[in-house]
Formats: sequence, C-alpha cells, structure tokens
Amino acid sequence: MQSPLINELIEAFKLLPTIGPKSAQRMAYYLLQNNPNGGKRLAEAIVEAIDKVGHCDQCRNFSETDVCRICASPARKRDQLCIVETPTDVVAIEQSGIYQGLYFVLMGHLSPIDGVGPEDLGLPLLEERLKDGEVSELILATNPTVEGEATAHYIHQMATSMQVPVTRLAQGIPLGGELEYIDSGTLSQAFAGRKAV
Amino acid sequence: MQSPLINELIEAFKLLPTIGPKSAQRMAYYLLQNNPNGGKRLAEAIVEAIDKVGHCDQCRNFSETDVCRICASPARKRDQLCIVETPTDVVAIEQSGIYQGLYFVLMGHLSPIDGVGPEDLGLPLLEERLKDGEVSELILATNPTVEGEATAHYIHQMATSMQVPVTRLAQGIPLGGELEYIDSGTLSQAFAGRKAV
Ligand SMILES: [Zn+2]
Ligand SMILES: [Zn+2]
Repeated sequence: MQSPLINELIEAFKLLPTIGPKSAQRMAYYLLQNNPNGGKRLAEAIVEAIDKVGHCDQCRNFSETDVCRICASPARKRDQLCIVETPTDVVAIEQSGIYQGLYFVLMGHLSPIDGVGPEDLGLPLLEERLKDGEVSELILATNPTVEGEATAHYIHQMATSMQVPVTRLAQGIPLGGELEYIDSGTLSQAFAGRKAV
Repeated sequence: MQSPLINELIEAFKLLPTIGPKSAQRMAYYLLQNNPNGGKRLAEAIVEAIDKVGHCDQCRNFSETDVCRICASPARKRDQLCIVETPTDVVAIEQSGIYQGLYFVLMGHLSPIDGVGPEDLGLPLLEERLKDGEVSELILATNPTVEGEATAHYIHQMATSMQVPVTRLAQGIPLGGELEYIDSGTLSQAFAGRKAV
C-alpha cells in the first residue's frame, strides 16, 4: 500500500551493508520527512564519487587524481612500501599514525577459485616498482586469512628473488581478524614489532 | 589523506539516522569497491522519491499520485478515520493488518514553541472531512507524548463539537513487555484501564 517510489528507495537502502528492512524504512522516511536536502546531497555525493574516483597510477588506491595524495606527498618515506588488500586497510593504518612510508593496494587477494590472479592484483606493476630499486623494505600487511597468507607468500617470493628485504606485521593481530576492524593501538604495536621474514 | 570525494561521501552518509563515522566509511567504500551499480540505483531512488513523492490530497500521507492508494482503495471502510502523526505510523498499523479504515496523517503534532499550529497539521482539511458526515468513528492514534496528547485533545474537541464519535487506542503493557522494565507512566495507565476477567 506504500508509494512505489518509497518502496524502491527502501529496497535501494537495503543494498547497503548491515542495513535491514527496518533501518532502510527509517532512512527513507527520514530523508523524505526531515531532510530532503541531505538526501540530495547524499545522492550527489554517491554519483560524484562513483563517476570520478578511479585508481592511483602508482599504488592502485582509490584516487580522483592520477597520483593519490599519499604517493604525491614529499613527507612520506619512499623506501618503505606497505602491501595491503584494500583501501580501507590504508585508512586504518593511516589512522594509527604509525607509518610514514608508501602503500601498494592489491584491491583483493589471490583467489584461483574466483579467477583472481597476480595480474588482477597489479603484481606486474609491483614488480616494476621493486625493480627500480627505490624500495628497501617491503612490508606485508595482507589479512591473516588463508587467501591473505597465500598472497603474502607469493609477493614474498617475488621480492626475495629481487633482493628486496621483506617484513611482516607482528603477531598481535588476532587470527582471522580483518585489518579494517582492528583498533589503532593494536595496529601500532603490530607495526612496531614487525620482523624480517 | 583520503580523496575529498570519498570524504564528502562519508560525510553525506553520516546525515542518515543511526549512521556514525565507522558505518559511513564502510558504506562509502562498499559502494565504490563492491557495488557501484547499487550506488547509482540508490542515488537515483533518493532523487526520484524526493522529487516526485508529494502528499495525498485527502489524507496528507506521502503519495506520488493526487490521491494515495489507501484513500483510493474500494476495499477500505470509509466511515473509520484514524489520526496519526507520521507516515511511518501508517506503515506500522498497516503491517499489523488490524485496521481496514482510512487515515489522516498530521505530519507532526501541535507545538506552539516550534510554531506548529492547527493549519500546519491540516486540521481545516480534517474539519471539512468531518463536516461531510461520512466519518462515523474518529480513532485517535497520536503518540502518548505531551505533544501527541495535546494534539489528540484538540482534535477530540473539534470532532465532539461536530458530533463525530471519537475513540482512542488502548494504552497499557505491550505484548511480551516485562513489568519490571515498563515505565511508571505506562504502568499507571495499565492500572487505570484494568478490566474484569
Ligand atoms: Zn597512490
Ligand atoms: Zn490518502
């Protein structure tokens, strides 16, 4: 008995993570009833971000410019390269404030079953990067999951074959824990305690 | 260090009810990383709903047509009129399936301090409606808050002066509610309204 447009809005909100039917309904009515301007702002922000945010040429992180702000920053140490699976991992590490080097964002992990191979993770680009000799420490910060470990192993071998020293974040990250949900303190300790592997 | 467009998207998500910084970040990255098509669908649904959903000429509920589906339905009893504060109240009552009459949606409650008077709630329209004699029971279902009660009182007087019978939803302990967690106001009303069994 509800307006079809309101129904569609509720369905669309249900696409978001953790949003069930009840929350979706609340959001839809909130925007219509209390904050239509906020709704327009949200719609525009979604379209703008999806249309204009691409990937950094150097680290593959999300960026609306060819080279992202971190890669372009003269304040970052250019001889440390931290390998993470996703952009949200970068956000988590940046929030800890412990790390001043650069990143390489895989945008996933090796998963033969899903057809995700080294090229999909930009590993040829990483290989080029290691070849130019600027990186003196490659820090593996993939998730401690089966796929994350397999990906780390693959990159470790690649780096070792090119004589690039490799470290791995210290234990302290709980087994099966996902980097993006780890608190800053734990992350800081994991960085400080990293070891050669 | 994040892309300004991603920051703006996170800020816009934070406008939604119950969404804090962490959830907003998760939603923003989820749309970019995993579901850009879903994001476009959400943006379009927001804009469509805000642009095209207006109010029903008869009951003031949200509607994209002049007369909403409930008011236009031949299946509804036209002699019962239930007064609610908001469209979400209509949704809640419709979900219970208990009521087959029509609604009148105030889109708020009387609040002199915020400058909300009878005209803002469409009460002249309600008066016209009562005048035409079709309504034989007006059901007050405003919220049991100070403002809701004051609004109910105002409408009660209006209906009585026009010889329209008025009822009020029963107040008491909710189904499954545990006595020890029920507030004393509700308990008082439950006592006052007790019945022989
Ligand atoms: Zn970059
Ligand atoms: Zn209507």
